[in-house]
Amino acid sequence: MTVTSPRTDLPTDARVVNLGLPLFADAVAAQGASVLHVDWRPPADGDPAAVRALTDLYGLRSADIEAANAEVLRRLDEGVPCLVDVRTAADVVPGMGERMLLHPGPPIAWTDVCDPLKRSMRAAVVAEGWAADVAAADALLSSGEVTLGSANEHATVVPMATALGPSAPVYVVENAAGGTRAFAPIGQGPGDVAWFGRDSDAAIERLVFLREVAGPRLARIVAQLGPIDVFAIAAQGVQMGDDVHMRTQASTNLLIRNILPAVAALGDDPQTVAFCEYLSTNHLFFLTLAMAAAKSLTLWAEQVEGASIVTTMSRNGTTYGVKLAGLDRWFVTDSPPVADALFYAGYGPEDAAPDIGDSAVLELVGLGGPAAAGSPAVAAFLGGSMADAARATDEMVQICGAESSRFKLPTMDFRGTPLGVDVRRVVETGITPKVNTGILHASDGTGQIGAGVATAPVAGFREALMALRES
Amino acid sequence: MTVTSPRTDLPTDARVVNLGLPLFADAVAAQGASVLHVDWRPPADGDPAAVRALTDLYGLRSADIEAANAEVLRRLDEGVPCLVDVRTAADVVPGMGERMLLHPGPPIAWTDVCDPLKRSMRAAVVAEGWAADVAAADALLSSGEVTLGSANEHATVVPMATALGPSAPVYVVENAAGGTRAFAPIGQGPGDVAWFGRDSDAAIERLVFLREVAGPRLARIVAQLGPIDVFAIAAQGVQMGDDVHMRTQASTNLLIRNILPAVAALGDDPQTVAFCEYLSTNHLFFLTLAMAAAKSLTLWAEQVEGASIVTTMSRNGTTYGVKLAGLDRWFVTDSPPVADALFYAGYGPEDAAPDIGDSAVLELVGLGGPAAAGSPAVAAFLGGSMADAARATDEMVQICGAESSRFKLPTMDFRGTPLGVDVRRVVETGITPKVNTGILHASDGTGQIGAGVATAPVAGFREALMALRES
Repeated sequence: MTVTSPRTDLPTDARVVNLGLPLFADAVAAQGASVLHVDWRPPADGDPAAVRALTDLYGLRSADIEAANAEVLRRLDEGVPCLVDVRTAADVVPGMGERMLLHPGPPIAWTDVCDPLKRSMRAAVVAEGWAADVAAADALLSSGEVTLGSANEHATVVPMATALGPSAPVYVVENAAGGTRAFAPIGQGPGDVAWFGRDSDAAIERLVFLREVAGPRLARIVAQLGPIDVFAIAAQGVQMGDDVHMRTQASTNLLIRNILPAVAALGDDPQTVAFCEYLSTNHLFFLTLAMAAAKSLTLWAEQVEGASIVTTMSRNGTTYGVKLAGLDRWFVTDSPPVADALFYAGYGPEDAAPDIGDSAVLELVGLGGPAAAGSPAVAAFLGGSMADAARATDEMVQICGAESSRFKLPTMDFRGTPLGVDVRRVVETGITPKVNTGILHASDGTGQIGAGVATAPVAGFREALMALRES
Repeated sequence: MTVTSPRTDLPTDARVVNLGLPLFADAVAAQGASVLHVDWRPPADGDPAAVRALTDLYGLRSADIEAANAEVLRRLDEGVPCLVDVRTAADVVPGMGERMLLHPGPPIAWTDVCDPLKRSMRAAVVAEGWAADVAAADALLSSGEVTLGSANEHATVVPMATALGPSAPVYVVENAAGGTRAFAPIGQGPGDVAWFGRDSDAAIERLVFLREVAGPRLARIVAQLGPIDVFAIAAQGVQMGDDVHMRTQASTNLLIRNILPAVAALGDDPQTVAFCEYLSTNHLFFLTLAMAAAKSLTLWAEQVEGASIVTTMSRNGTTYGVKLAGLDRWFVTDSPPVADALFYAGYGPEDAAPDIGDSAVLELVGLGGPAAAGSPAVAAFLGGSMADAARATDEMVQICGAESSRFKLPTMDFRGTPLGVDVRRVVETGITPKVNTGILHASDGTGQIGAGVATAPVAGFREALMALRES
């Protein structure tokens, strides 16, 4: 090492690095000097208990956690979820009761259910034939004679305000390496539909259509074609501008292209033509299939003990629940509003129901927000430029433990999407996953009134961190 | 203005700008000094006649040319080509004779036709029923009893080594604003096919399949759905990673998605299922449709007199032809080799036929090379990184007169693709359009043996420039 004499003259070109509060940096810059401002904050916002937990989990216990995380990340990255069947929920979903509705998010009692999900449940009750109309359905639900179950506790994920009854058809997605199976309903499509919080006649008819028309035909198609590698399609979709959450157009079309000969073999009866019209106009058709695929991986991942990777994030419109691998516990906070939102004309934040749905399971496997950087459609929504979309991915990079080896971002030199949300990083940085999502009307049954970005509350992640420390 | 005294000391941090030959720049850099090297070359490679023509066409005649170009560029940018019908070539293609084959590129005599195109012609003759087998077809073609016509002279464009007979089905694409109609064959798909220079039984059967099975079904679909806006689909395709020349996967799938209900209505007979299998496995299905759409615009554009915009670039495997708007003349040079190529195992440049096909019409309307920057698939082919693809687009920017208002590149902040090749800029810079294309075997009928980038020879453009000056 060479020690140089200290300079005795004053520096003429001082270059300043400023950490933390920007006041000093601003003052230096005002004098025309060069300054690099580092937006440093104390970890965990300076909360002493959280800092102690982080010190522990990054310190002494780090080796164990890293080993557990490596296995969790491997499972999320390497599992190959395949669509193997389309079946009636009652036949395949574990623990599905005869008079049960599965809903998104953590468990919830009828009295606490938000308005759009109540409407969706009423529509499902009528479609199941348990009540003649929505008024009777409401009475039945109020009486407690319909059991409400958290879909996630039944190896199932449902989007937005979906209520899933036992007669509804579901995708059966199998992750053979892990021996896990997950389920999700067939997407209801756009418009006047129950998953948007509608309980109209049309919304009920759509549920019947899925059961009577779409489900049996999809079952025949899958039976004819054999297992369909869901994430092989999603990986191509990411190359074609899908984040595979908000935007699934390319993946949907790739799937349609693949199944086309089997669709032709269905016949040319009016119901088949109606099924094709439904497919042709439903650009989010792939969404629920991708969700079931993701869930089949998180089910495998959560069998690993002592990891700090999040394996469930889901919202029921009232509460937001988080789970960690190896800890079979919900960490629940209030469901957040959907901020940074675009509303349809005549609607605003005061009309909006809180964030709802299980689709954030996609953000845990490298899709959705992590894949935003490659999606022009998502960019248009996040601010307009691809740089806006890249920022969404960059945020996820800061809180994720790995990069996907199958979902590659062309706009980032084919770097893998960030994969595996590490609760330590979330609490340390205060950055929680953002979820691009639709917005439903809070009370009047209008259905979708806009779309925006929901930011998960940090409290649930903090609670999970503390529980991990104590485990 | 403040005049400062000249410094009397020698500069300690000389920064050098070097124009032209790099020798001086290299010497400065070798001494550790900062140097900016500008890769300047004399325009038109210093050719005096070309420089005089450029001086004239950029100078005194500039206003007239710019006005004509503006109209040409408007037509290329704003025309809305719609698929309105699928018909037998004999019924719709102007000047299609009873015993005529249309071929790519400039007009050519049988004796000068390259081997893969000869094979394709023989296959077409057998498919037309003019000969019982390829030997008889060869004799018939050698006898001169089959008229050979340049597809471009019949408002038609054909890809690679396609030979189009009168019974073949063609897309009818109408540009209503311009009153122009253009035609292209239905794509033959991958594998053992005549457009790759094959004259096998399977290649002939594919031509019969297109005529008997695919053509009538596509005609019913178009009749049911009405006009289909081809470039509205292509514009979405560009957002999804298509250059809509080498890669048309997204556009193909969007089209399939759109026509799905009409496909279902065709029935479930084995031929319809076979048609769906053909659609499902033909990722370049959209290519010829896009070519016909582009041709309907160049037909409109070429009605403008005195412009310097190229309206035809096409190759027959022997010669490469260029046309300018308003000049109904071919400027012909030898067809170039396909350089920067990837060959299938066991093949190399010595096996390759020269560049062939009419598909470069796409490069004239903002697709293909101009759209490379947005295409991960094309990038993989041009060197692997998105920067490689961006360079291909940047090159086209240097020789094009406008930016497309419909084809937008997400990777370039939604900038329009370069549109309208200006022959002045081509000759001035020496940059000619590059065309990504397949490579066919030169002699043994193997079919496709690789793919690469063909660079147009500058000579034809120079000839066109001189003719424009004299016009």
